[in-house]
Amino acid sequence: MDKLNIVKIGGSVAEDDKALSLFLDDFSRLEGAKILVHGGASKATALSKQLGIEVKIKDGRRITDADSLDVAVMVYAGLINKNLVAKLQARGCNAVGLSGADLNVIPAQKRIHSDIDYGFVGDIDTKDINSYMLRRLMDESVVPVFCAVTHDTQGQLLNTNADTIAASLAIVLSTVYKVSLTFCMDIPGVLEDVEDPGSLLESLDIRSYQKFKRSRAISSGMIPKLHNGFEALEKGTDKVVIKHSKNLLTETGTVLSL
Amino acid sequence: MDKLNIVKIGGSVAEDDKALSLFLDDFSRLEGAKILVHGGASKATALSKQLGIEVKIKDGRRITDADSLDVAVMVYAGLINKNLVAKLQARGCNAVGLSGADLNVIPAQKRIHSDIDYGFVGDIDTKDINSYMLRRLMDESVVPVFCAVTHDTQGQLLNTNADTIAASLAIVLSTVYKVSLTFCMDIPGVLEDVEDPGSLLESLDIRSYQKFKRSRAISSGMIPKLHNGFEALEKGTDKVVIKHSKNLLTETGTVLSL
Repeated sequence: MDKLNIVKIGGSVAEDDKALSLFLDDFSRLEGAKILVHGGASKATALSKQLGIEVKIKDGRRITDADSLDVAVMVYAGLINKNLVAKLQARGCNAVGLSGADLNVIPAQKRIHSDIDYGFVGDIDTKDINSYMLRRLMDESVVPVFCAVTHDTQGQLLNTNADTIAASLAIVLSTVYKVSLTFCMDIPGVLEDVEDPGSLLESLDIRSYQKFKRSRAISSGMIPKLHNGFEALEKGTDKVVIKHSKNLLTETGTVLSL
Repeated sequence: MDKLNIVKIGGSVAEDDKALSLFLDDFSRLEGAKILVHGGASKATALSKQLGIEVKIKDGRRITDADSLDVAVMVYAGLINKNLVAKLQARGCNAVGLSGADLNVIPAQKRIHSDIDYGFVGDIDTKDINSYMLRRLMDESVVPVFCAVTHDTQGQLLNTNADTIAASLAIVLSTVYKVSLTFCMDIPGVLEDVEDPGSLLESLDIRSYQKFKRSRAISSGMIPKLHNGFEALEKGTDKVVIKHSKNLLTETGTVLSL
């Protein structure tokens, strides 16, 4: 099986020129097939504010109304995605920027919830993912760059968590590649003490994760990454690591294990 | 030679829900290889206004500063492009939204002018266009959807006229396909009297065009289309037509000839 690196970067990397430049230098040096997945929520929040669009939160969950979706599509699929593609091209990576609507790679279902209307938010069933054209592109040494936008196949774009997109692609592509999934953050990995960057856990198994989660020793931003990471691992991904974006080419980070 | 339809739509189609829906129904019925190219300047102008970004015009030419470029990338490559892709997917067209940076299809040169700094505007030399991946995609029945954004191959996105992108793609792909290039507008074609929609010219040769241009009988918005259209015809495009977006599948329109 050929190797495939799937790397997810959050807004802390994608929106910081210097950190991004260093990261892209490293990413472009990764050999073999690779996919980049990116977020960018803070830039979307900033644009929403500029446009006077209220960011709606219900029970701690962000609600995506029609205006917020337009902002997400403009910022994720437009501004951040195309700038990443141009910067990768400048580094000799033949990148192509994609949403889940492009090539129908990621069909999603608008989230239905009995109490809360999340708006235009899409949940992925990995069975629906169409990886054929992705594989054809990677056969041609093309590097897909995914933003956090999917579609319902009926013409409606949807907002989908970028960590979930990265993990879903890892699961589906694990049937044809030996997949390494890396979540890049602005901290070195999972910390035993969130206040102490020196308390990096070099590995984390699913039992310890569940213990940490119950004791609330893990920061809330880390939980979706770990949830997605362990699911990817259970469903065939060869390796899942959480690390600082500056450590992409080094071993420093937290390796997940079952 | 296989046939290839390249269709360009302007903002008057892309930004009008009903006209767009009818157009996309027809476009999705076109058989064989096809490419859609779109503009969207009026939506970009509206967003610039909302964000308090001044639209700068010098000697009748729009200047693209850094903020205006960001708006163009958000609106063209994000909002309009991805909604078109989702709507085409809903019609069974396996669309992929592309800028000229994606797959390095359209490298461009930042415009250098002795008197005016046009800002982030890119001019295309058709010799630089990389059509290999486009052809691979169309071999897989994928429908590329291009927005009016290119790049300088050094990491900088650039704003490029959508008519020029459509004509440049037609010229380059004419070496491998029998290309039909159609400019869709909200008028039936080239009118002998711009005030009279009944005065449609069914054909226009380059001599008559030059005569009309000198006598200023042709509206200023039509001139770049005709300039690009005649250049495409001179450089190998099989057929160039200017028509109303609702007439995509009919013969009504102005056919250009040399």
